[in-house]
Amino acid sequence: MEKITSAANPAVKRLKALSDAKGRKEHGAFLVEGEVMVREALASGLSPLEALFEAETPLSGELAGRGAFVRLCDRHILETVCDTRTPQGCCAAFTLPDGPAIPENASRLLALDGVQDPGNLGTILRTADAAGFEGAYLSPLCADVYSPKVQRAAMGSGFRVPALRCPLEETLTRLKAGGWQIVVSALDGLNLYENEKALKGDKLILVIGNEARGVSPGVQKLSDIRIKIPMRGKAESLNAAVAAGILMYELTKNFPC
Amino acid sequence: MEKITSAANPAVKRLKALSDAKGRKEHGAFLVEGEVMVREALASGLSPLEALFEAETPLSGELAGRGAFVRLCDRHILETVCDTRTPQGCCAAFTLPDGPAIPENASRLLALDGVQDPGNLGTILRTADAAGFEGAYLSPLCADVYSPKVQRAAMGSGFRVPALRCPLEETLTRLKAGGWQIVVSALDGLNLYENEKALKGDKLILVIGNEARGVSPGVQKLSDIRIKIPMRGKAESLNAAVAAGILMYELTKNFPC
Repeated sequence: MEKITSAANPAVKRLKALSDAKGRKEHGAFLVEGEVMVREALASGLSPLEALFEAETPLSGELAGRGAFVRLCDRHILETVCDTRTPQGCCAAFTLPDGPAIPENASRLLALDGVQDPGNLGTILRTADAAGFEGAYLSPLCADVYSPKVQRAAMGSGFRVPALRCPLEETLTRLKAGGWQIVVSALDGLNLYENEKALKGDKLILVIGNEARGVSPGVQKLSDIRIKIPMRGKAESLNAAVAAGILMYELTKNFPC
Repeated sequence: MEKITSAANPAVKRLKALSDAKGRKEHGAFLVEGEVMVREALASGLSPLEALFEAETPLSGELAGRGAFVRLCDRHILETVCDTRTPQGCCAAFTLPDGPAIPENASRLLALDGVQDPGNLGTILRTADAAGFEGAYLSPLCADVYSPKVQRAAMGSGFRVPALRCPLEETLTRLKAGGWQIVVSALDGLNLYENEKALKGDKLILVIGNEARGVSPGVQKLSDIRIKIPMRGKAESLNAAVAAGILMYELTKNFPC
């Protein structure tokens, strides 16, 4: 197996380029870091392109068997490529999925209206997977799902929950016409816990807004159900990922598990 | 007003030392960054010691009026002192509160059993404030409440929710003897949404475990109510702050708001 000894190696440069959205678009690939996440990506059916390993392992063999070009390298080279400070033994580039399909027969979807913090976005996808949400529409202002920080916070759920960037108002207008109800969290909304019936509908889309500005006025106008999470102390708001978690679980509380 | 021009100034060194737990203990103070947070700290009754401002503002006057030593400095000096990359105009050292009192007549408390990520800890305190939890007991393995990262994630709630470091098993044993019920989230627990009655008790303490290892065996043994948040997709767990948010709101859902 080829061993890379210099950080100037073209493979290192190529993998390093995947740390930003421009590089990912150019190469049609994104980087997955660490053994656990690489396994999750494989299990989710993603296609590996190339990989770096500190040492040969069963996983490096598996990637090679799936047609990926696997190279060995020293730890300091892995560290230049990876976003994590202490990368766990390997990283691999996978083909960017193009326009993941959101299931037609879904009953719970997310619409993320400018969720910009990568940690929040990843955490929201992780919670969506756990709660039983089946896909997410992302406005163009959201963080990039394929950035290493988002994928790390998503803990593998970023490979599983279909997430589609789209013009959000247009998409929601179309879905609304198709019978979906749009649920928006708003300060003038109904108390979440006093309006449980409204949240049992068949086809609900939960909108989560930007960390500072909330849901944009154009999307607010499309809302069918306006709810609010009670604020009892002096905190003025909740973290976006926490609010999303509380709301997603309320919207699926009667689902089997 | 004195203007500091060198990063070697003793005041700069003193404030910089507050970025780690050792420095905070030595000086009996912690650093609050940015105008909004400094106002929140003042409003919460904390005592300001000294402060740095890029320019004189009504707030710098207010701090001086409260007995703090206020100095001016250039932006690059503020940046060396602060943890935030783009500090908002000022920072101030406040006296560390000693052993904040947790109200005797509380009905909802947190026990944090090794919550180590500063972002998670801060976010949990922010949510506790919003949900109506009245205090938190922290095991010695938890992140330091007074670190800048925790305070930033807490968005001011870190000044308001009394958080007490203590030997957790001892404290919970004592509280249990005093009639408190201990609620632990566990994979073999009852479905959260099918056991709502159990969560209406008068005096409930919710335990949140370590990000990787969960609740420690010694604390598990003290539990009165074991619940689980349903996991429907392939995600194996939730982020600790999200799980804490879902559980805290379930435990206060019948509270007025």
